[in-house]
Amino acid sequence: MSGGRAVTGPEIDRLMTLLARLPGLGPRSARRVALHLIQNRETALRPLMAALGDVAERVRPCSICGNFDTRDPCAVCADPRRDDGLICVVEDVADLWAMDRAGAFAGRYHVLGGVLSALDGVGPDDLTIPALETRCAVGAVREVVLALGATVDGQTTAHVIADRLATVAPGLTVSSLGQGVPVGGELDYLDDGTIGAALRARRPV
Amino acid sequence: MSGGRAVTGPEIDRLMTLLARLPGLGPRSARRVALHLIQNRETALRPLMAALGDVAERVRPCSICGNFDTRDPCAVCADPRRDDGLICVVEDVADLWAMDRAGAFAGRYHVLGGVLSALDGVGPDDLTIPALETRCAVGAVREVVLALGATVDGQTTAHVIADRLATVAPGLTVSSLGQGVPVGGELDYLDDGTIGAALRARRPV
Repeated sequence: MSGGRAVTGPEIDRLMTLLARLPGLGPRSARRVALHLIQNRETALRPLMAALGDVAERVRPCSICGNFDTRDPCAVCADPRRDDGLICVVEDVADLWAMDRAGAFAGRYHVLGGVLSALDGVGPDDLTIPALETRCAVGAVREVVLALGATVDGQTTAHVIADRLATVAPGLTVSSLGQGVPVGGELDYLDDGTIGAALRARRPV
Repeated sequence: MSGGRAVTGPEIDRLMTLLARLPGLGPRSARRVALHLIQNRETALRPLMAALGDVAERVRPCSICGNFDTRDPCAVCADPRRDDGLICVVEDVADLWAMDRAGAFAGRYHVLGGVLSALDGVGPDDLTIPALETRCAVGAVREVVLALGATVDGQTTAHVIADRLATVAPGLTVSSLGQGVPVGGELDYLDDGTIGAALRARRPV
């Protein structure tokens, strides 16, 4: 009888629409989140606004590795306890975070920004492969660990990078993650134990 | 090896912590949402901040029914097409929205703000029961529909409200939602209580 008559104003509707577009949320969870925020204005809504504002104003990609941080170079690149001789190459920042949560790698990182894809027209210059070559050519890098997904595009990318690094830095060891990475699996969804095992079992390409 | 060394700064950590506290989200989905927001600053993060700001500044509970809106009285209470003679009593605003999505009720609402609970020490004056009595005593209300959950506390609350309204508004009809098989529900998945209730509420075809 009253279908189409709005009980929520445009402000709440807009909030629910934006929340429903976030990964993992749908219309139903967006409603629950919106209500939770309205009902907890001081303890949830305002702190979330402040945190979003901080991130929006201050977080930038690191100019060296591509990680997100308020500092540039980022906390990882600036950390003196990390080994400059090791670079772990990942597809995106989610993978960098996943690698580091495993706690099995104490070197530096390099975020590619994607993987090569003939289908999607992604070539080496669309990724940060040239920057990686520069880091390996001029730095004191001993080994590059290619921590890319065990997908066709991920493995193609690993081979292309290994070939190009062999040219610009002939003495460099290039390895890839070993056993433990499920075929077709994505790093961000792996448990820490699997990531750690894969890192220990890394092997030359 | 590098366990405990942060790759995300305090700003991103704080955002992920706040996101993980939202209903339906956990640490993993909070990470995904945080990265999505950082990577889509202009299309997701800033619009969400603006929407949260609008809601924080402008949305208030309606002084008549308890619904959330930027106006007071809210859109439901101010709508001239709705029947002043009907009030649907719900536990919270989520239930009000759910009732109205069904599009089967064209009266007004009254949000209790909870249900009576001896265990949690919630009495009638902790809810908006006195305000409901006032609305029924002075208004042109013909019927109150108690749309409360089929829990022990929900049904206790319904009985208390029915008793109190019988005192302050003797001519008033007080009803509650019918109980039975959910539309689209399969008998095999229903609990015994629901099947029993549906059987007691059987009607001629």
